[in-house]
Amino acid sequence: MKTLNVGMIGYKFMGRTHSNAWRQVDKFFSVPAKPVLHTVCGRDAAGVKKAAKQLGWSHVATRWQDVVANPEIDILDINTANDTHAQIAIAAARAGKHVLCEKPLAMNVREAEAMLAAVKKAGVVHMVCHNYRRIPAIVLARKMIAAGDLGKIYHYRARYLQDWIVDPEFPLVWRLQGKIAGSGTHGDINAHIIDLGRYLVGEFAEICGHLETFIKEQPIAGTKKKGRVTVDDAALTIGKFKNGALACLEASRFALGRKNHIQVEVNGSKGSLVFDFEDMNRLRYYNDADPVDRKGYRDILVTEGVHAYASAWWPPGHIIGYEHTFVHTVADFIQAVVKGKSVQPTFEDGLQNQKVLAAVEKSAKTRRWVKV
Amino acid sequence: MKTLNVGMIGYKFMGRTHSNAWRQVDKFFSVPAKPVLHTVCGRDAAGVKKAAKQLGWSHVATRWQDVVANPEIDILDINTANDTHAQIAIAAARAGKHVLCEKPLAMNVREAEAMLAAVKKAGVVHMVCHNYRRIPAIVLARKMIAAGDLGKIYHYRARYLQDWIVDPEFPLVWRLQGKIAGSGTHGDINAHIIDLGRYLVGEFAEICGHLETFIKEQPIAGTKKKGRVTVDDAALTIGKFKNGALACLEASRFALGRKNHIQVEVNGSKGSLVFDFEDMNRLRYYNDADPVDRKGYRDILVTEGVHAYASAWWPPGHIIGYEHTFVHTVADFIQAVVKGKSVQPTFEDGLQNQKVLAAVEKSAKTRRWVKV
Amino acid sequence: MKTLNVGMIGYKFMGRTHSNAWRQVDKFFSVPAKPVLHTVCGRDAAGVKKAAKQLGWSHVATRWQDVVANPEIDILDINTANDTHAQIAIAAARAGKHVLCEKPLAMNVREAEAMLAAVKKAGVVHMVCHNYRRIPAIVLARKMIAAGDLGKIYHYRARYLQDWIVDPEFPLVWRLQGKIAGSGTHGDINAHIIDLGRYLVGEFAEICGHLETFIKEQPIAGTKKKGRVTVDDAALTIGKFKNGALACLEASRFALGRKNHIQVEVNGSKGSLVFDFEDMNRLRYYNDADPVDRKGYRDILVTEGVHAYASAWWPPGHIIGYEHTFVHTVADFIQAVVKGKSVQPTFEDGLQNQKVLAAVEKSAKTRRWVKV
Amino acid sequence: MKTLNVGMIGYKFMGRTHSNAWRQVDKFFSVPAKPVLHTVCGRDAAGVKKAAKQLGWSHVATRWQDVVANPEIDILDINTANDTHAQIAIAAARAGKHVLCEKPLAMNVREAEAMLAAVKKAGVVHMVCHNYRRIPAIVLARKMIAAGDLGKIYHYRARYLQDWIVDPEFPLVWRLQGKIAGSGTHGDINAHIIDLGRYLVGEFAEICGHLETFIKEQPIAGTKKKGRVTVDDAALTIGKFKNGALACLEASRFALGRKNHIQVEVNGSKGSLVFDFEDMNRLRYYNDADPVDRKGYRDILVTEGVHAYASAWWPPGHIIGYEHTFVHTVADFIQAVVKGKSVQPTFEDGLQNQKVLAAVEKSAKTRRWVKV
Repeated sequence: MKTLNVGMIGYKFMGRTHSNAWRQVDKFFSVPAKPVLHTVCGRDAAGVKKAAKQLGWSHVATRWQDVVANPEIDILDINTANDTHAQIAIAAARAGKHVLCEKPLAMNVREAEAMLAAVKKAGVVHMVCHNYRRIPAIVLARKMIAAGDLGKIYHYRARYLQDWIVDPEFPLVWRLQGKIAGSGTHGDINAHIIDLGRYLVGEFAEICGHLETFIKEQPIAGTKKKGRVTVDDAALTIGKFKNGALACLEASRFALGRKNHIQVEVNGSKGSLVFDFEDMNRLRYYNDADPVDRKGYRDILVTEGVHAYASAWWPPGHIIGYEHTFVHTVADFIQAVVKGKSVQPTFEDGLQNQKVLAAVEKSAKTRRWVKV
Repeated sequence: MKTLNVGMIGYKFMGRTHSNAWRQVDKFFSVPAKPVLHTVCGRDAAGVKKAAKQLGWSHVATRWQDVVANPEIDILDINTANDTHAQIAIAAARAGKHVLCEKPLAMNVREAEAMLAAVKKAGVVHMVCHNYRRIPAIVLARKMIAAGDLGKIYHYRARYLQDWIVDPEFPLVWRLQGKIAGSGTHGDINAHIIDLGRYLVGEFAEICGHLETFIKEQPIAGTKKKGRVTVDDAALTIGKFKNGALACLEASRFALGRKNHIQVEVNGSKGSLVFDFEDMNRLRYYNDADPVDRKGYRDILVTEGVHAYASAWWPPGHIIGYEHTFVHTVADFIQAVVKGKSVQPTFEDGLQNQKVLAAVEKSAKTRRWVKV
Repeated sequence: MKTLNVGMIGYKFMGRTHSNAWRQVDKFFSVPAKPVLHTVCGRDAAGVKKAAKQLGWSHVATRWQDVVANPEIDILDINTANDTHAQIAIAAARAGKHVLCEKPLAMNVREAEAMLAAVKKAGVVHMVCHNYRRIPAIVLARKMIAAGDLGKIYHYRARYLQDWIVDPEFPLVWRLQGKIAGSGTHGDINAHIIDLGRYLVGEFAEICGHLETFIKEQPIAGTKKKGRVTVDDAALTIGKFKNGALACLEASRFALGRKNHIQVEVNGSKGSLVFDFEDMNRLRYYNDADPVDRKGYRDILVTEGVHAYASAWWPPGHIIGYEHTFVHTVADFIQAVVKGKSVQPTFEDGLQNQKVLAAVEKSAKTRRWVKV
Repeated sequence: MKTLNVGMIGYKFMGRTHSNAWRQVDKFFSVPAKPVLHTVCGRDAAGVKKAAKQLGWSHVATRWQDVVANPEIDILDINTANDTHAQIAIAAARAGKHVLCEKPLAMNVREAEAMLAAVKKAGVVHMVCHNYRRIPAIVLARKMIAAGDLGKIYHYRARYLQDWIVDPEFPLVWRLQGKIAGSGTHGDINAHIIDLGRYLVGEFAEICGHLETFIKEQPIAGTKKKGRVTVDDAALTIGKFKNGALACLEASRFALGRKNHIQVEVNGSKGSLVFDFEDMNRLRYYNDADPVDRKGYRDILVTEGVHAYASAWWPPGHIIGYEHTFVHTVADFIQAVVKGKSVQPTFEDGLQNQKVLAAVEKSAKTRRWVKV
């Protein structure tokens, strides 16, 4: 069987989810090539060595440049902090590697444009890891909307709520530092519901947004000092899609009790859909064509074999979880690499997402509506 | 407009719900006669006087015999403790009154038979107040099952759970005394889910039941003594209907957090239904004929005008509550009285219910299955 | 017992809910005066006569001026279309009547100011009928927030979604005509979630909103013509309260499957609350002080006797519905009238609400943030 | 790192879940030995070869006796049809292998006793794979009940509902044949909720059960004939635990819309718990000690790091699924093997379960209560 050598940069949270995906994919899916966990890379030599052992990688590296330069590597998988995506991805493309990059694609539109240009010029396969697109329930939603089952779309409303920094003693991690993270909730989780909006409904035309930092200072770990939080804690956005639908988005890390609460609702002229990530194996569907005395949101348990990716796993009702979305992503990426085809979401999608993020930021500063 | 004079015996909890129903019915439904709250009766002269004023009754009485004897009274409404139903109802029938009686109809099968014989002989309209039959969602369930939409029925499962006597300091009220109440959860709430089973699925063929008293003594109010609890705290029943469906019933007053939790599920060869009283404006429906990728329990909000009784109230989504079921009951009872027709659930239903209750009691003693 | 004669202008949907409230209030609450359904008024003589009979009113009138002029009337209850509120309320105040007025209070800020001035000058009791404030679950939410149980408030998010005009053949009723209704979803239902925001969280500081009309023309009933829809179908608003909390509001009549879906969520530094009107007897509460392994949204069934208004109705778990909120409103209004005290929400609240509505409208036109 | 060679007999549905567990366990848990997927065994040479490749096993075998005889094998993992568990497990024990066996342990009590005797005599570690014990929410439930947080237990009610053979054209697979499967729903899924009852509440004292076969014949695959269904389609049980709690159990494969619906509720004198497998990352908890106006079922999302097994996976709110329960099982089994300690559920548990199953069967025949 054909193999593909993977080099992975970054081994923390996303590195763990990606490692699992590379390990699991050929055990459950009929992929045309078996991925080999070749090299994992991180700046901390001891840390990366330990991670390699735990996660199942054969080699380690402490400089990403070495991985990019290694002719044995076929695929570069980027899981680092946001401020390094662009340089690594561009170098990888130039070296002829196929690139899978975590979201948000870049720190800004300019970087994203450069990254897209690089992968296009190199002719490599490129994908941004918006894993939530490959939840079976979301795939079903997309299929239904694309087939016209919801009719003309009027509303897209989405929330991505978490609560992990409500505590004022929470340390000033890199995700709270603008220089490294670029933004806070905005690039981290608002980016996800913007992507789902683009995937399900279409391109944004114009938006108006607000970014808020509730707690201005957090403790610097290992010291008694506090440092300035230079990212947003919450992002509110209203907007309009090019097809006339309205958008209402809310992302926050200050919603107690909401752990990874991604709630999406789409209302059209023929029906509605509701999705909630904390119960991600379900899609709720209202069909206005049902008989008048039997209308109601259906609670579709998206575990039947007919649903996307579902037959690879377990019988109906035996639910899957968070990490499976990455396995699905990697399964499709491998297909694309072997066939030399494009696979959504591409860097083009990453760029479009970045443009919406930038428009929200501009709007938040100018206090008015902005065209995307 | 024609009027009907009502005499009501008993004015506590059920007296309040019935009074409200008599007052409200002609304000919301086009009934062929307007009920007049003529006389309310209770043994405590001061209490009944106060109740009459609060609940809107014109006259009071302290002896039910006087109400029965009053030629002005058209309808006798019985809300007393269970041990007096039979004598009042029989006397009322003999006096030519139409009778609405709270459930359980009687203390035992023999009493129920005598009551049925009396109302039949007198030719009066008779109804036992199983108010839950007239929840719009239950009416819809009955309609769907009767129309064959669920196919052959395999399972009826129902729970009626409450928690009001978990507290060991709860006083020894009449409902805990076998002489007055006849039984505990069994006649009080198990009777309701037995009735719903009969209404939705059909007649029981055989059953096996268990009655349990968890706390054997409770305090006698106003004293420092405790008295024996002579009724059951919980009733478990498995059974089989004549049409081959299985029944699984559970009634308890010892389920903390369950306030008036009536959950009913019916599974057939073509679909399933689920109902939960604490969210009584909904009926969940699974239709196996839905497309394979769009199957799921529908959450039907039974507030559209097409549903039974719904158009009399408010627009869709503006929910109704507990007391409305009594207004519906009384609306249908008035129709029957004016037209001289029978109205379900009749005393015949009350008798059948009593037979099931008796079979469970016999089974609980003999520790084996019993034919109903 | 003291009585209060009520004159009610308008007898359609709101007239029905108010009539029920006036009839029911003294049957369930210990009010210091019994309201008498004295006169109902409507322009259509036949219609108002029929309504009077159905709803239980003693007298009819076809000119509201006659009701205002009638010295027997103590309370004026205004349920007419929005464009007549101001003139009726001002005249009523001048005639010394206590005034209960449906929301939105007026067509604009100017009218609302005049109405407030009139009731203040006359010294009458004035109340705007934001009935949702008196859902027991909302009263509990308010109590908890006021007591500091949620800590500092970060987020208020609310949706009021309906679906009754998704159908392009829906006739051009008065609620779709700007001249009579003032606005569409905005004044009709956005006004409610704005009011709940003010009630629960505080005053709005600044907002940015968008108003959309999805279907520009609807059929004129009884003709083959179509007329222009001159109101909004949906209203999106993001905003900031004076206390620093963020607001995200969405009102729409184009959300299929959502019948009267009012969902409110409040996140604070110590906890969160979630409410959904279609299941209005519950309040969900997340308490961050719960032990770390036992944290979770509690599903509080707000039917225990300790909750506001609950002991007047039924035992725990026996739910109430939509119309009960009006009974609660009227109960408190009668208290205020007899005691000569103010009762929230006053016309002052109506005016503040109108200012927020106006700010949203201005923002929607100027495409930028607006101070309230 | 120490390794343990695993030999697995059977590679279908359970073989897939177990293979995944053996592969994944050391990637997520700090196990004291790394399991090696040494040999997979099945009767069909081509099938087992294909499975080995897909699932990651190094060697194949077509006779389980060869695997048992292989001195390199440390652990024998039995996933075959129920009628072969006993012989394989006993042979494995005699050969000194540690044994993990799928449930139900055996075809009857006699077999289970022989198996238990064999593993005890051999001094090997033995475990029956009741994977649902290792859902984090179930572990939490057990912990809370054991700590007395629910007080005295009154009720255990559980349902295990599926719908995969409602279709009368469903083929007569081995699970429908008594000779191979032993029983139908009874041993397959009733066994699970019996085990959860024993795990959470205690030993059963006496029970009364009913077994039903709704469809008596199903098509024989590849023929036009039908064969007799010789197992039960549904099992209903009421019972009493030694500690006085009541049990109400229902297992069925004829509940349309219920895919793998395991619902468990426990009511005690201090609180209640509710679990639903189709939403398996949650546990609902009612604490009667909560303030009177704030009582309600808490929806605990059991994904915080403090919960059993949770820290090995993902951040809070990033849910896990069905297969994770097997990884947890295997992690604990490896610990036990290396430490030479017992690990629940042992074959003793398997035997106890078998005794309950046998008592239900006897009761179903004799139509009366039976002591366990």
